[in-house]
Amino acid sequence: MKTRAAVAWSAGEPLSIETVDLDGPRAGEVLVEIKATGICHTDHFTLSGADPEGLFPAILGHEGAGVVVDVGPGVTTLKPGDHVIPLYTPECRGCKFCLSRKTNLCQLIRGTQGKGLMPDGTSRFSIGGKPILHYMGTSTFANHIVAPEIALAKIRPDAPFDKVCYIGCGVTTGVGAVLFTAKVEAGANVVVFGLGGIGLNVIQGARMVGADKIIGIDLNPEREKMARQFGMTHFINPKDVDNVVDAIVQLTDGGADYSFECIGNVKTMRQALECCHKGWGQSVVIGVAAAGQEIATRPFQLVTGRVWKGSAFGGARGRTDVPKIVDWYMEGKLQIDPLITHTLKLEQINEGFHLMERGESIRSVVVF
Amino acid sequence: MKTRAAVAWSAGEPLSIETVDLDGPRAGEVLVEIKATGICHTDHFTLSGADPEGLFPAILGHEGAGVVVDVGPGVTTLKPGDHVIPLYTPECRGCKFCLSRKTNLCQLIRGTQGKGLMPDGTSRFSIGGKPILHYMGTSTFANHIVAPEIALAKIRPDAPFDKVCYIGCGVTTGVGAVLFTAKVEAGANVVVFGLGGIGLNVIQGARMVGADKIIGIDLNPEREKMARQFGMTHFINPKDVDNVVDAIVQLTDGGADYSFECIGNVKTMRQALECCHKGWGQSVVIGVAAAGQEIATRPFQLVTGRVWKGSAFGGARGRTDVPKIVDWYMEGKLQIDPLITHTLKLEQINEGFHLMERGESIRSVVVF
Repeated sequence: MKTRAAVAWSAGEPLSIETVDLDGPRAGEVLVEIKATGICHTDHFTLSGADPEGLFPAILGHEGAGVVVDVGPGVTTLKPGDHVIPLYTPECRGCKFCLSRKTNLCQLIRGTQGKGLMPDGTSRFSIGGKPILHYMGTSTFANHIVAPEIALAKIRPDAPFDKVCYIGCGVTTGVGAVLFTAKVEAGANVVVFGLGGIGLNVIQGARMVGADKIIGIDLNPEREKMARQFGMTHFINPKDVDNVVDAIVQLTDGGADYSFECIGNVKTMRQALECCHKGWGQSVVIGVAAAGQEIATRPFQLVTGRVWKGSAFGGARGRTDVPKIVDWYMEGKLQIDPLITHTLKLEQINEGFHLMERGESIRSVVVF
Repeated sequence: MKTRAAVAWSAGEPLSIETVDLDGPRAGEVLVEIKATGICHTDHFTLSGADPEGLFPAILGHEGAGVVVDVGPGVTTLKPGDHVIPLYTPECRGCKFCLSRKTNLCQLIRGTQGKGLMPDGTSRFSIGGKPILHYMGTSTFANHIVAPEIALAKIRPDAPFDKVCYIGCGVTTGVGAVLFTAKVEAGANVVVFGLGGIGLNVIQGARMVGADKIIGIDLNPEREKMARQFGMTHFINPKDVDNVVDAIVQLTDGGADYSFECIGNVKTMRQALECCHKGWGQSVVIGVAAAGQEIATRPFQLVTGRVWKGSAFGGARGRTDVPKIVDWYMEGKLQIDPLITHTLKLEQINEGFHLMERGESIRSVVVF
């Protein structure tokens, strides 16, 4: 079949809207009509050429929502008409990682996914007979995609595509880090470094589980207002204090119970660890640092009880937890609407990247 | 009263056997006759002058066992004749740290203990009217000590002092890191960096809880034999492989479920983290690094699911867990006897330090 997609022909170039050939689903695969997709920093990172693992030509996008159109042989858990969110972190429920019960990082199709291919080692996308690569197993910048059954979360049919697409990455990454990675408990003090899209979702995750102080840290004072709407109780601008770690320790009577780094800066990662409470404070790295950068601290910080960990896709198991997060949004436990600052047509997708570059959007969503 | 003690008059000098004046126990304090004490690297670290927090003159020693002789006003949980192990990490059961249920690092008397004083801000030791400082709240190089009630674990009366004194530090630090900090489960793969006294106790802790592969790492091939007696199943000498991290990852089909650094070297701390399994591997820092040294890694190691933490006194709550560890020794679940390679009289205590310096002892114990 034919579909429309924004194609990334090479690094550093704008996306190009093309008519693309899409092969039908093979065994274990599903054809999905994408209804909406967010534009995430990770797409920008890859498109810029800074991602050493970026491959071209490819169809980017990994934060979508849509409807099942057709299923390949052997697919048992999805049928045409089901509403789904594609998962760049699949959940096979059978690999060593899924069965460990300790991680969400299913590795069953990791090898082919990293190469921009379906699990059988080929691509379903092509133009004029020339293959176009998949991206993160999702490629939600296409109006139709083929994805493995294990990489699709079935969600309730009444959830609006143009909002819950954001659960495909940003919402889950932030909220999940609180609920699934850190397992923040009611009454805990939480510190969030970076009040962008991920940080705001960490904040509302912390509010949802009943955290006490929710302290946001950002150099940009304009971020304070919306962060308070999402549940932030205290704001510290590092420019306004001598030492941000000391300021946090004072405000929390000893340090954060949980801290989250949502910037990707190794210096703030260190601050996020060292502002934690002696004995039990846990710091979760969410932000992605530039290639080759390293985090450091004195081992004394760990020996006296602080824990340093990280979170990918919020520690969420895609098929199990993403539908729950959709429910929480529909029940009003989580907000998404204020975070989606721009809604665009596919033809405007490059404008979405420019809005991100200029810091004018929290999230832009493309609606097909 | 008078008692005998090995006094550290100043850094870098041998200990001097002296007759010391000891004031009786005040409110909440207990007079204990020390029957035996181990000589630990931490005593050596302080005596050498390398410890920036070391204070002199003082009576060192923190790994003892003895009998209650007298109790001060208000002491309710101990009586003369009770057998006890002094705790450099007390357990008040009432401070923010004890009540958190998340740490063993009771802070109730941390301030005075760090200054070498009892909780009321004075010392019980003196010579010729001049105060001699306590050390770690224990000072087990004295035949009699006064210690706070909260810093004494009551143990069964049939446990031999000259063996279970080692539970006052080394055994608990190693075994506890496995049981209480990492909570290693049956079937896990465990890697231990450094096969000295702490590492051997990590190994037997891992064996006790049913670990599968227990892999020891040491540059000294002579350490292999005893480590195998304690439960080590595989030995890797870093000199024999190109890359110790790769060798561990291969041996464990992906990496360690738990690793323990028992050396105090920031380079091996990094290796211990990076040899952990993607998705869930936890690395526990036990060794104490030199002042000012820092650990480092790429944050990607954490984002892909590894956890970096530390352990002090094995995460054990002194009054709650130390008596259990004594029981496990008495029941044959843990070995201590082969680790105590030398038994000395108080007059020979400096020889115990020399044995440690020359690497000839695992543990020397002084019997009063």
